[in-house]
Amino acid sequence: MLPRVTLLATGGTIASLETADGLMPMTRAEGILEFMPSLRERADILAQDVFMLDSSNIQPEEWCQLAQAVRAVEEISDGIVITHGTDTMAYSASALSFMLPGLKIPVVFTGSQLPLHHPHSDAPGNLREAFAMAASGRPGVFIAFHHKVIHGTRAVKMRTLGFDAFDSINAPPVGRFDADGLHLRQEASLPQYDIQNPLEIDARVFLLKMMPGTDPEIFDHIKRAGYRGLVLEAFGLGGLHYIRRNLIEKLQGLSQSGLITLVTTQCLYEKADFTLYEVGRGFMEDNIYGAHDMTTEAAVTKLMWALGDIGARRRLLTRCLSHEMLTGLE
Amino acid sequence: MLPRVTLLATGGTIASLETADGLMPMTRAEGILEFMPSLRERADILAQDVFMLDSSNIQPEEWCQLAQAVRAVEEISDGIVITHGTDTMAYSASALSFMLPGLKIPVVFTGSQLPLHHPHSDAPGNLREAFAMAASGRPGVFIAFHHKVIHGTRAVKMRTLGFDAFDSINAPPVGRFDADGLHLRQEASLPQYDIQNPLEIDARVFLLKMMPGTDPEIFDHIKRAGYRGLVLEAFGLGGLHYIRRNLIEKLQGLSQSGLITLVTTQCLYEKADFTLYEVGRGFMEDNIYGAHDMTTEAAVTKLMWALGDIGARRRLLTRCLSHEMLTGLE
Repeated sequence: MLPRVTLLATGGTIASLETADGLMPMTRAEGILEFMPSLRERADILAQDVFMLDSSNIQPEEWCQLAQAVRAVEEISDGIVITHGTDTMAYSASALSFMLPGLKIPVVFTGSQLPLHHPHSDAPGNLREAFAMAASGRPGVFIAFHHKVIHGTRAVKMRTLGFDAFDSINAPPVGRFDADGLHLRQEASLPQYDIQNPLEIDARVFLLKMMPGTDPEIFDHIKRAGYRGLVLEAFGLGGLHYIRRNLIEKLQGLSQSGLITLVTTQCLYEKADFTLYEVGRGFMEDNIYGAHDMTTEAAVTKLMWALGDIGARRRLLTRCLSHEMLTGLE
Repeated sequence: MLPRVTLLATGGTIASLETADGLMPMTRAEGILEFMPSLRERADILAQDVFMLDSSNIQPEEWCQLAQAVRAVEEISDGIVITHGTDTMAYSASALSFMLPGLKIPVVFTGSQLPLHHPHSDAPGNLREAFAMAASGRPGVFIAFHHKVIHGTRAVKMRTLGFDAFDSINAPPVGRFDADGLHLRQEASLPQYDIQNPLEIDARVFLLKMMPGTDPEIFDHIKRAGYRGLVLEAFGLGGLHYIRRNLIEKLQGLSQSGLITLVTTQCLYEKADFTLYEVGRGFMEDNIYGAHDMTTEAAVTKLMWALGDIGARRRLLTRCLSHEMLTGLE
C-alpha cells in the first residue's frame, strides 16, 4: 500500500508565475501535482491549500494556521509535505518544531529557488526528495532541500540564488540523498514534556543585531514599546560594548523590568557563552538566557513560543526541545 | 634591508590575561614583541599602543583613533600590523577600508582565539602571517588569520571558538599561506576618487535584522530618534512583509523623510536584489539603495562613512570603493 502523504501548499517561489509586477505565487496544491504526476506513483496524496503567500509575508499568525492544518490531517497521514517560500522557511520550520510537540509523523518543508514551471527549476527534485522524506516514518519537522534533510530548528537560508539554499548549522544534516536514495542519521530520542496549548505564542519579540556603536536608547525603546522578549545577536561569544554607550547597564535594566532576553551570537557557527570574558560577565542576571548554539531563527521562534505560556515554559528555555541546541538535554 | 613594519596594539583576546573577572586585555605592543622575538628577525619593528580594549568595546570613535594612528606612521612604514580582538575586527577593518582612501601600504589586522600566552594559542602563527602580509607591498586593509588574507570589507567572523574564525564572503581570500609562504591573488586596481576629510563619519545608523512579525513601529522609532541611516537585513533577495504589518509603507515613509537605507540580505552568501519579486518592488524609492553582495559589516561601515559627508559621498554608495561589492565598478 502506498504511504499517505498530505501536501499543504502555502505559495512561495515554487508556486510563482511571472507577472507584470514580478514573480507572484499562484500555483495551488493541485497544480503542483498536475505538473508532477509521478509523485502520485509513490504516494497516496491528499492536496490542500493553506494560504498563497510570498514567504516574506508569512508571520506568526500563519505559523498558527499551518500548525492547525498539520494537526487536522496528522491522523490520516503517514507524512506531510509543506511547500513554502524559501525566504522565511527556516523560521516557519523552526516555529512548527516547537508548536507541534509529540508529533508522530514527518512534516517536511520544501520549496525552490526557481518556480516549478521554469525550465531549470530545482522544484521537481526538491519535491521528490520531500515526498521521500515524508514517507520515511521519522517523526519531526524538517526541511528537505537540494539533497539534504535538515531539522527545522537547525536550518538557515544561506544563499539568495544558489540551489543549495539551506545549511544545517552546528549539527550535520539529519539526512542526505544520493543515487542510493535517502540516508537518515540515527539520533537519540528527545525528552518529552507535557505542554499545554502548544499553539499559543506571543510575537512581541524584538530581534536586535549589535553593531559597533549601537545606541543604548534602543533598549529604552524596547522597554517602552511593550515588547516582552528580546533576541540579542551579540558579538563573538556574547560581547556588548559598555564604554561611552553602556549596553550592559541597559540590558540589566530590561532584565529587571521582567523582559526576557536570549543572548545569541552574530557568528554563524558555534556557541554563545558570555561567561568567558570580563565584558560579558556583567549580564548574568535573571531573565537573561544564553542561546548556546541555537540559530537566530530557532532563538526567535523558541522565545515567541515560550512567551505564549511563560509560567510553564520558562524552564524549557534552557532545555533542548527539538534538536535546537546541543546543551540542555537532561 | 629589513622591511619597516609598525605594530599598532589595541587589546583583544591576543593581549588578554586571566583575571578573577575573566579574560582581560593587558599585553602591550612591546609585550607582544618580547613574547615573539623572532618577529624582529624579519622586520624592523616600531611598536605602538593605540588603546587597550576588548573589541566588543571598539566603536566608531576608536576607528577614527586607529585611522589617525595609521596615517601618523604611514610615511615611515612599509606596512602596518594591527592587533585587535576578533569580535569586531571585521567591522574595524571594513571601516578603515573606507576611511583610508589612497593607502599605499598594507594595513593588516590580526588577533587570535586564545591569548598569546596560552600554550595552544593561535596568536604566534597569526602574527607571523600578518607580518609577512605587511611586508608584501600590496596596498589595502586586510585581515590575516589562520592562513588566509581577506579584504577588510569581505571579512566576517564566522566561528566563536574555531581557529579558522574568519571567512571571505562572496569573494575568495586575496591571499593564502602554505608551506611555500604567501600566495597573493592578482586583482584589478580600483578606481580612485578624490575624497575630502575621509575620517569624517556619522555613527547614527540603525542596523535592523528582519524577522517574521517585525513590528512596523520600529520604523517610526528610527525616524523619531534621530537616526540618519538604516541598514536593513531583509529576507532572501530583499523581501519584507506587508500584510497586517506593512513594513514597505513604513520604509517608504522613512525614505521620504530623507533617511538613507541600504537594503542587504540576512543570507550570508550572494547578493540582495529587490527588483525580482512583487514583494520587493514597492521600495524602489529615492534614498533606498541595494547593498548587492556586501557583508552587513561593510554595509554598516560604508553607510556611516557615506553619512559623514553625504553631499559628496552619496554617489559612492553605488560604487565599489574597496572590494566591498562586485557591482559598481566603472
